[in-house]
Amino acid sequence: MKALQDRILKDGKYLNNGILRVDSFINHQVDPLLMDQCGEEFAKEFARVKADRILTAEISGIAPALMAGKHMNLPVVYARKHKPVTMPDQVYFTVAPSHTKGNMVDLIVSPDYLPRGEKVLIIDDFLASGSTILGLVRLVQAAGAELVGIGTLIEKSFEGGRRSLEALGVPVVSLVRISSMESGKITFTE
Amino acid sequence: MKALQDRILKDGKYLNNGILRVDSFINHQVDPLLMDQCGEEFAKEFARVKADRILTAEISGIAPALMAGKHMNLPVVYARKHKPVTMPDQVYFTVAPSHTKGNMVDLIVSPDYLPRGEKVLIIDDFLASGSTILGLVRLVQAAGAELVGIGTLIEKSFEGGRRSLEALGVPVVSLVRISSMESGKITFTE
Repeated sequence: MKALQDRILKDGKYLNNGILRVDSFINHQVDPLLMDQCGEEFAKEFARVKADRILTAEISGIAPALMAGKHMNLPVVYARKHKPVTMPDQVYFTVAPSHTKGNMVDLIVSPDYLPRGEKVLIIDDFLASGSTILGLVRLVQAAGAELVGIGTLIEKSFEGGRRSLEALGVPVVSLVRISSMESGKITFTE
Repeated sequence: MKALQDRILKDGKYLNNGILRVDSFINHQVDPLLMDQCGEEFAKEFARVKADRILTAEISGIAPALMAGKHMNLPVVYARKHKPVTMPDQVYFTVAPSHTKGNMVDLIVSPDYLPRGEKVLIIDDFLASGSTILGLVRLVQAAGAELVGIGTLIEKSFEGGRRSLEALGVPVVSLVRISSMESGKITFTE
């Protein structure tokens, strides 16, 4: 997606540890119009999977998932990292290693919002190692729901996350794929 | 706002501890079309304050703030509760008591996204005691930016938060105001 590529080149910042900083338009500060465009693009890409629901992870998945949900007219559920007092005691729960934080994070979903048999589309901001997304996939499986697709804004294809998702047999769509950030130079691949 | 009132009556759940559970359409599960309508309403209400930027707090402020930002064509910044590795060391920082969690939460904003002199509109999901919003106000003041308005989806007017915000001298707009939840019966006020 050209608009997102252009924005990454203009405002993305490469941090030495393999992390792409996009906190001026995706995390921390969000560009709502860009996210709206990305949501529209997800809606086009996933029209044929006929999802019932979108699942994402707090925090930075919320913006792209919400805009995808708006364009697809679907409810959006975000897995919580801490169980709020308003959540029932019986939940779907998994843990996933956090790439940027170096620790494990909890992913918790209320069974009320992940019904058995529904078709679930996962949307998140990044596809890097794929560990957060695989955590979301485990929640879908625990619920007895059906995974129908995975969409991310930015894939760092050199981290191999796509390979770990391939066995799932669903379409994996990233709006932008970065094949290299060697020496801070960002190279896209189609 | 009638659509939001209706949804609260239909799907809101009163928990005995004074907490209104709205996790089927605002927190945890989000209804993107309802949030879009709420964002449009905020845009109307705050058109005349000519904000440069919207500030909210993660996590549940993100959806309404993002949709308001879309309708107002403004960047949205969400205060983080944990400092990510991508954030610079020098930040604006405050702590605020969390109503639903009973502990203190950090609110952290990068100076890059809260520039001195800009007009800032605060949007959040709830106005209860007002403590989170007052935390956001302190960040605006620390940055030398100008607060121009406060918008929330749901005000629990019996918790007195509005009174604590009045001294700020800016419009405080809640799309729905609940005056009582006695015995689980939700009463709205205009």
